[in-house]
Amino acid sequence: MTSNDSLAELARVLQSRKGGDPASSYVARLLHQGPDAFLKKIGEEATETIIAAKSGERSALVYETADLIFHTLVLLGHQNIPLQDVLNELARREGLSGIAEKNARAEK
Amino acid sequence: MTSNDSLAELARVLQSRKGGDPASSYVARLLHQGPDAFLKKIGEEATETIIAAKSGERSALVYETADLIFHTLVLLGHQNIPLQDVLNELARREGLSGIAEKNARAEK
Amino acid sequence: MTSNDSLAELARVLQSRKGGDPASSYVARLLHQGPDAFLKKIGEEATETIIAAKSGERSALVYETADLIFHTLVLLGHQNIPLQDVLNELARREGLSGIAEKNARAEK
Amino acid sequence: MTSNDSLAELARVLQSRKGGDPASSYVARLLHQGPDAFLKKIGEEATETIIAAKSGERSALVYETADLIFHTLVLLGHQNIPLQDVLNELARREGLSGIAEKNARAEK
Repeated sequence: MTSNDSLAELARVLQSRKGGDPASSYVARLLHQGPDAFLKKIGEEATETIIAAKSGERSALVYETADLIFHTLVLLGHQNIPLQDVLNELARREGLSGIAEKNARAEK
Repeated sequence: MTSNDSLAELARVLQSRKGGDPASSYVARLLHQGPDAFLKKIGEEATETIIAAKSGERSALVYETADLIFHTLVLLGHQNIPLQDVLNELARREGLSGIAEKNARAEK
Repeated sequence: MTSNDSLAELARVLQSRKGGDPASSYVARLLHQGPDAFLKKIGEEATETIIAAKSGERSALVYETADLIFHTLVLLGHQNIPLQDVLNELARREGLSGIAEKNARAEK
Repeated sequence: MTSNDSLAELARVLQSRKGGDPASSYVARLLHQGPDAFLKKIGEEATETIIAAKSGERSALVYETADLIFHTLVLLGHQNIPLQDVLNELARREGLSGIAEKNARAEK
């Protein structure tokens, strides 16, 4: 399965849990609690990713990075933002040559 | 980013910039500066993602989410961690049923 | 000068810059730009504090911790929240015995 | 916390819990667990401060700001960094005039 296929499938599964019984799954509960619940998780997982990287703990880094992406997908699902919109934004940048990209960022 | 495997392609491009001339691209410069440079960006972009979500700014949210994923891929590239390892970790969780997933998390 | 005196003095100075010419000082500019500007700084400085601590860089840790407290005081000033309110909340906890404090937190 | 030096007193109390029985208090447990435990809390509390500010929840903002300062003091205590060192760094900046401060920051 390609990266996009598997991430897009995960994004669809997460979004499908909106409105589900909060007792039925972790994600249904997060979505039921509302944005602050998963926004806090994004802050937490970013922190844990940084700590794992500084600690040189490779398996923890894979785990925390997955957690960070997971909760970012929950946010996108909650906001009804297709993952493809984010991939398109990433592609737009990738299309920029190195120097052009740098200049574009300097103007950000 | 219309190919089926655009994220993996981006991850490869980012990783390929390791050792490149710091003046040639933003990513080459980040990788040359070392982990603290892109770890700071992960903290910054997580913060900006949270602020954009709380502000209800949809286009900013797409932009900041892309930035967060982008710098997370830079980190993976720097650590020579294949994106597939993170996708495998995500797939492992997706395979868990709702309740099983919740219980697994409770034990984390 | 005691800790509270000096921090309270700093809090007053920061608050007094509200409405000042944005060109006149860094803080006047932050306050003019509005909450997102200094909320981003709080996220950035928390990240830099964590990185400095993990790096074992003592002088960087003093610097980043000062930056974190500084921007937190800017936030309080902007919201017209007296530093004393925060000190009172800290005192309330300090008054709790160890176990009571732990139990209180568990219920948070 | 009515004394003139309540923050310094709190910093001393927190530091005194180093080496204490982890079961005796929340702080003794944090210090026993080691830096990652309270560094994660700093990331979490910074995130919760940002969310409370964006939500316009004044009492939550006082609470989260207190939590952020509290865990920052735990970090200083663990590293044996006197609060006064941080206050001195803050005073050093306060002494700068507005423009000088701005210029100093631009060179950071």
